[in-house]
Amino acid sequence: MPRALITTIPFGDKNRLPIDLLESAGIEYVINPLGRKLKEEELADMITDFDILIAGTEPITDRVMRSASRLKLISRVGIGLDSVDLLAAERRGIQVSYTPDAPAPAVAELTIGLMFSLLRSIHVASAQLHQGQWNRHFGRRISEVTIGIIGVGRIGARVLRRIHGFGSPRVLVNDIKPDFKLVPELKLEWVGKDDIYREADLISVHVPLTVQTKNMIRREQLLQMKPDALLINAARGGIINEQDLYSVMAAGHLGGAAIDVFEHEPYMGDLNKIERCILTAHMGSMSIDCRSRMEIEATEEAVRFVTKQPLKGLVPKEEYDAQRDGL
Amino acid sequence: MPRALITTIPFGDKNRLPIDLLESAGIEYVINPLGRKLKEEELADMITDFDILIAGTEPITDRVMRSASRLKLISRVGIGLDSVDLLAAERRGIQVSYTPDAPAPAVAELTIGLMFSLLRSIHVASAQLHQGQWNRHFGRRISEVTIGIIGVGRIGARVLRRIHGFGSPRVLVNDIKPDFKLVPELKLEWVGKDDIYREADLISVHVPLTVQTKNMIRREQLLQMKPDALLINAARGGIINEQDLYSVMAAGHLGGAAIDVFEHEPYMGDLNKIERCILTAHMGSMSIDCRSRMEIEATEEAVRFVTKQPLKGLVPKEEYDAQRDGL
Repeated sequence: MPRALITTIPFGDKNRLPIDLLESAGIEYVINPLGRKLKEEELADMITDFDILIAGTEPITDRVMRSASRLKLISRVGIGLDSVDLLAAERRGIQVSYTPDAPAPAVAELTIGLMFSLLRSIHVASAQLHQGQWNRHFGRRISEVTIGIIGVGRIGARVLRRIHGFGSPRVLVNDIKPDFKLVPELKLEWVGKDDIYREADLISVHVPLTVQTKNMIRREQLLQMKPDALLINAARGGIINEQDLYSVMAAGHLGGAAIDVFEHEPYMGDLNKIERCILTAHMGSMSIDCRSRMEIEATEEAVRFVTKQPLKGLVPKEEYDAQRDGL
Repeated sequence: MPRALITTIPFGDKNRLPIDLLESAGIEYVINPLGRKLKEEELADMITDFDILIAGTEPITDRVMRSASRLKLISRVGIGLDSVDLLAAERRGIQVSYTPDAPAPAVAELTIGLMFSLLRSIHVASAQLHQGQWNRHFGRRISEVTIGIIGVGRIGARVLRRIHGFGSPRVLVNDIKPDFKLVPELKLEWVGKDDIYREADLISVHVPLTVQTKNMIRREQLLQMKPDALLINAARGGIINEQDLYSVMAAGHLGGAAIDVFEHEPYMGDLNKIERCILTAHMGSMSIDCRSRMEIEATEEAVRFVTKQPLKGLVPKEEYDAQRDGL
């Protein structure tokens, strides 16, 4: 009987269908007994006896795979592959699938929500009123600010399309290769990242975590930003250096920030001392519909694997090449 | 020399143009020295010697006007007229103007921002993480929920048009008279208020405060709502009974609420004990552009009055009739 370890949490919580799919296919499964993101060692200890890993964002390293002699399929619930050593998987003949489209609408909506909270100081006003202080904060409307988006793939492009409904702000965008046909409703200005840091009032990153994007925004980049710039990371922890963000904000720089993803999760760092920094708990994909779709798609892939049907979510060659080239 | 009392706060803060307009027109002015919303008695004491009142939302009652023997124009910075006794003004020959269009875009954007905060529990997650607790909250996307809008005038209709960019949720609307041509992009269902209370997942009120809408949503209506319904008031304090809202939420009813306006401001009531209730400080119109536009329009009206040009922002007859009929 094939055995699947499910490490992503929650799983099957709001929609039981993924559990039913596993049971109908006769797949024996174990759901992460620790109820939180696993560390490398914990996963290595836990995975020894499983054929399939239905995975979250925990580190799936060569070390982990070495302990996983039966492992044949890693089915990622979500889009990021920074946690998976694709080259180690390739060497060991372990296939890797993912669900790149499912989370995008939910992440885009959370990003828009964070934009409005930052622009209108909803979080600060509410925290203050909960402490008995009435402060009427001035804010800005989307059409009044210059928006900078770094990374305009599935999620960044969706964010831009949603923004258009609120007027026509100046929009600066950056990506590895410009796509001049993207979101024609807005007049996008394709610029360098430094231009975005210097000129944008509201900056949101939507890039994967790679060797190139790790610590992409650190002290130097933060200090290039306007004193009242607003910054969002709902992509991956580590793209913005958290300790640098804390230290510049503690010194009074930046108007606000919203961080949904952290280098180590659960996050317990210093940013919680900064009232004007919104902190959410890696909730980008956590709308009921998108989360269910991700879990179902990743589970269907496991069922296809077990029933020897062609896989549909295999990670494309470019992702392997990117890791090979250290991109 | 004509004298203007400016009670609305802030004034001329982000954009000096209204101050410049007053000075160029030779209008002597005093800005509210208390720096907060005035009470009836305070305004009565302060207004004795002024020809023009550039007003916020403080009570401009018959009692106030009785002390204001020189007063000839009330120029409201904003849209609501619940604070102005129009009939007393009419009897005393005091003209009343307002700026009904200027605040709408800012209020609509704040409302959308509050919707996303509620739908994704941004406020709860952030408050918890600031206290060291990591909780991944499930949320819903706009297109997944049934939205109920009570009052689809300048602001409610704008909210609906913004929502459309996020998909096509079921939308229930209520207003005094249905307008079947409104926001044709969405399939609006014109229903009674009770249908909205019972069926909507996310309810936002955008009605003026009148005798009819005062305490429109009290314990009885709140208890009709779904246990996880989300409720927004960025219209006027008193439309939703605050003490009833506190008591039903303290008992566990409703998924969340966002309240920007209060019966008495600054608000110091019990809702600050409810973590899942977002509280903001009457900030609907507080985007820099809209606030400036409101102040400029209200000041231009004062200048027109002093220079004997026709007034452009006079409150229409229907508003007087509504107060006369107790509507």
